[in-house]
Amino acid sequence: MAIGLSTMLEKTETLLGSDHASVVSMNLFVALLCACIVLGHLLEETRWMNESITALIIGSCTGIVILLISGGKSSRILVFSEDLFFIYLLPPIIFNAGFQVKKKQFFRNFMTIMLFGAIGTLISFVIISLGAKHFFEKMNIGDLTISDYLAIGAIFSATDSVCTLQVLNQDDTPLLYSLVFGEGVVNDATSVVLFNAIQRFDLTNINSTIALEFAGNFFYLFILSTALGVAAGLLSAFVIKKLYIGRHSTDREVALMMLLAYLSYMLAELFHLSSILTVFFCGIVMSHYTWHNVTDKSKVTTKHTFAALSFLAEIFIFLYVGMDALDIEKWDVVRNSPGQSIGVSAILLGLILLGRAAFVFPLSFLSNLTKSSPDEKIDWKKQVTIWWAGLMRGAVSMALAYNQFTTSGHTKVLGNAIMITSTITVVLFSTVVFGLLTKPLVKHLQPSSKRSSTTALQITPGSSFHDPLLNGGSSYEPLLSTQGQSEYTIDQPISLRMFLNTPSRAIHHYWRKFDNAVMRRIFGGRGVSPIVPGSPVETSVRQWSEEAEIKEQNGEP
Amino acid sequence: MAIGLSTMLEKTETLLGSDHASVVSMNLFVALLCACIVLGHLLEETRWMNESITALIIGSCTGIVILLISGGKSSRILVFSEDLFFIYLLPPIIFNAGFQVKKKQFFRNFMTIMLFGAIGTLISFVIISLGAKHFFEKMNIGDLTISDYLAIGAIFSATDSVCTLQVLNQDDTPLLYSLVFGEGVVNDATSVVLFNAIQRFDLTNINSTIALEFAGNFFYLFILSTALGVAAGLLSAFVIKKLYIGRHSTDREVALMMLLAYLSYMLAELFHLSSILTVFFCGIVMSHYTWHNVTDKSKVTTKHTFAALSFLAEIFIFLYVGMDALDIEKWDVVRNSPGQSIGVSAILLGLILLGRAAFVFPLSFLSNLTKSSPDEKIDWKKQVTIWWAGLMRGAVSMALAYNQFTTSGHTKVLGNAIMITSTITVVLFSTVVFGLLTKPLVKHLQPSSKRSSTTALQITPGSSFHDPLLNGGSSYEPLLSTQGQSEYTIDQPISLRMFLNTPSRAIHHYWRKFDNAVMRRIFGGRGVSPIVPGSPVETSVRQWSEEAEIKEQNGEP
Repeated sequence: MAIGLSTMLEKTETLLGSDHASVVSMNLFVALLCACIVLGHLLEETRWMNESITALIIGSCTGIVILLISGGKSSRILVFSEDLFFIYLLPPIIFNAGFQVKKKQFFRNFMTIMLFGAIGTLISFVIISLGAKHFFEKMNIGDLTISDYLAIGAIFSATDSVCTLQVLNQDDTPLLYSLVFGEGVVNDATSVVLFNAIQRFDLTNINSTIALEFAGNFFYLFILSTALGVAAGLLSAFVIKKLYIGRHSTDREVALMMLLAYLSYMLAELFHLSSILTVFFCGIVMSHYTWHNVTDKSKVTTKHTFAALSFLAEIFIFLYVGMDALDIEKWDVVRNSPGQSIGVSAILLGLILLGRAAFVFPLSFLSNLTKSSPDEKIDWKKQVTIWWAGLMRGAVSMALAYNQFTTSGHTKVLGNAIMITSTITVVLFSTVVFGLLTKPLVKHLQPSSKRSSTTALQITPGSSFHDPLLNGGSSYEPLLSTQGQSEYTIDQPISLRMFLNTPSRAIHHYWRKFDNAVMRRIFGGRGVSPIVPGSPVETSVRQWSEEAEIKEQNGEP
Repeated sequence: MAIGLSTMLEKTETLLGSDHASVVSMNLFVALLCACIVLGHLLEETRWMNESITALIIGSCTGIVILLISGGKSSRILVFSEDLFFIYLLPPIIFNAGFQVKKKQFFRNFMTIMLFGAIGTLISFVIISLGAKHFFEKMNIGDLTISDYLAIGAIFSATDSVCTLQVLNQDDTPLLYSLVFGEGVVNDATSVVLFNAIQRFDLTNINSTIALEFAGNFFYLFILSTALGVAAGLLSAFVIKKLYIGRHSTDREVALMMLLAYLSYMLAELFHLSSILTVFFCGIVMSHYTWHNVTDKSKVTTKHTFAALSFLAEIFIFLYVGMDALDIEKWDVVRNSPGQSIGVSAILLGLILLGRAAFVFPLSFLSNLTKSSPDEKIDWKKQVTIWWAGLMRGAVSMALAYNQFTTSGHTKVLGNAIMITSTITVVLFSTVVFGLLTKPLVKHLQPSSKRSSTTALQITPGSSFHDPLLNGGSSYEPLLSTQGQSEYTIDQPISLRMFLNTPSRAIHHYWRKFDNAVMRRIFGGRGVSPIVPGSPVETSVRQWSEEAEIKEQNGEP
């Protein structure tokens, strides 16, 4: 342990070795991040663009400029670092997703989300693996082993939840958002778990024992990861509730929440669990319990700080992927066989389309069978949107591909080089082309004026004035406005039949009962929220928030 | 440039090389940070402790535990990395200091602060250098060159502004806080500039030309650094004011402010300026202009996020210094001559006490000559407090000492080893002993009931109820409450005589005129603050803030 720490810090020392060049690079990178934010803001009005694509394009352009300046000699402009991604950039994004997700929506659709995220990913994984094996064996692209094909399946089953966040709007299409995004997180986790399992197990001889072990491993990871996240979230609620009684310090609270969220992620890494799942559930629990125990100022601060950090990490990733795509060394090997590389990329894109279609439509059908109300069913328009919105492949795929195909200088091997360049091509193509088409498609299929009727916050049609105040723009209001609602409990017995008919509802109902009875006493939660509804502070916060919204709506500076 | 970027990222890759050991270390470190926050909170009531000392002690204890676990073999527990400190940990602290400083106080005492920070540090530098040369030459501790002695002067002239922030209270003793802290920042900058100059110039033959060049270099750095910081701050105000008209996005604003602040720091590093000064002035300008152009939510968020990040970085540093102090290798060399090491440390501590006394009392006397009102004069109690509060030496000293005495494996040389261990001893001793005594001393000399009458916010005695609401606890209120004051202008001509008599006042007056006339039109500033005093939003924010304070005061959860 001690040695690890020292190695790490010695490396940090060399890393940051105050050479002028790295200072130049950092300046360049920070300046580019600023440019992305400003450009993203300016382009927000257009229906095609989003911040990811802007960052990707700016990154690629910078890559080209640097390549030209260095006279085409600089083969490595910016190397994609798997660990930088998994240790620093991904945690804030996934945590924030959990923190901001509409929990009611999420838990209401829990079963569907799990169905899509776990079973769906497995279906997609099988199809892509088999397809890749079928096609690539005929193409003579170097010797790929069975575990390589399985890895390809796992790599290209990982949807880009980051990009999804940018194309779907939580407030306009809450059902779709929670389904696609929730699925994305579970899917990311499933892919990573699958990938790790592939690297760990000897899969040359698959038999039923190994398959069972594999499945057992998967559920073990899933349950433990979730439990760890929930435990970390509850710990933060407990500590903040018990220790800070009466003398809240905003800065301490904010710092402690950040640290505990990060600790949950790192602990999951330590125990080789799925850190993505852990930090996601930690975010959910923190927004459900911890957030209601902190001062009003901490509420506003955490909400926006986590969002801003996540936003920065997202742009960073896309800028990074854009710049990395220009790395000459990778393209050198495949230069002699451009046809092959294009062919592989095209096949992979086709398999992604097919693999996703193969689970979205059947599983939606299955999910619809369990729903009684037509409002909760996933109609074909929604199914197409779900299918399309999950087609993008992003940084998780890149990171996994690097892990599998660049181990110990194997990049020079043709098969590995082709797989890396194809991954980059697929990521760029799917993000830019599929990404560009998603916003118009969603607008076409799901006109935003027609709000989904399964919204947690029932809004009477025509209340166009209060509507944006409650649901739009502000990311502060939605959580606040669900305040009183957990007081409301249905005192019906939970029957097995009810469970079978509407499983997600029953779970939600059970959760609410448990939540009311036990959890709130210990961890605070909504019930003992420091903002008592109707109190002067609550009125004031609401009033303030609403007035700020009105100002924003009216375009005042 | 391209190569620099790639080198940096390749190193990042090796750095983070997903070895299990570094994950363990990160977990340990994050957990310790959490422990420091919780313990710091629990110990807040005691008059002796502060978070720095807690972190220092926890760090040392952990160091001992790791040393015992590894059986005394692990010589390097955690290596203090100069660059980690200067590139990641220092910027948020200094930026936040500029962002939260009471600008009116700061500019009112600008001349005194500059006098203490620049001239004072030079005096201290000369005394410590001469003293070190005088004593150490007789002590036979290896061959130290003239530039080593000068470096020692610069290293031990750097007061620890981080620790100062923790022992003095901006609200209880605003004059002292702004003097000591303002001096601390200028002093840090002066020390770093001096230190760089010592390393750059050939100082074996000092003559008047070199001395002049040295002085010229100093002022050049000082002015350019300040200008860069101001420019970055104004740029952020301009961009946010012009581009985000009417459709503010809190997350974008927060992200952009963070990025631009960091960019100013890195640009200063790039141009070899004093990045500490740059980011400090960037913070001041951002709180004066940018902060008034953002949404209310961004106001609360930035205020607390910057404070929380700075708070985390502070604890990190002290934990780091505490753990680093246990590095066996450094102590190995000096083990044979413990007397020498203790002697050197004692001499250095004496020189620090003397060097600081040699400028605080004479310069206070000079400063008092220019003040007419007895309220603005620095009485002897205040002088003693200023002298004492600046005695602590911290991470800046450590970083500079490492830079000077550990270059290319020279740690094994006796002289270098002794200087490193003595620096650690001085830092630990001054932080713990002087730090522990500061709070009681301040309480004894400056009873908090007797508020300084030069406070920007004049509070009538006896208004004990409103007092804490306006000044105490909340770090949100102070900036808000100075709202209307920039409307008020004195239409008297600025005479040279006025300038000579009360220089700081004249500067403040001139600044206010300029600020009103030009700056506010372009950059927003207070005058065109989006919160119009008396408007519903302003009333609501104030009301909300006050109610939250009352709750806090009353000990409600």
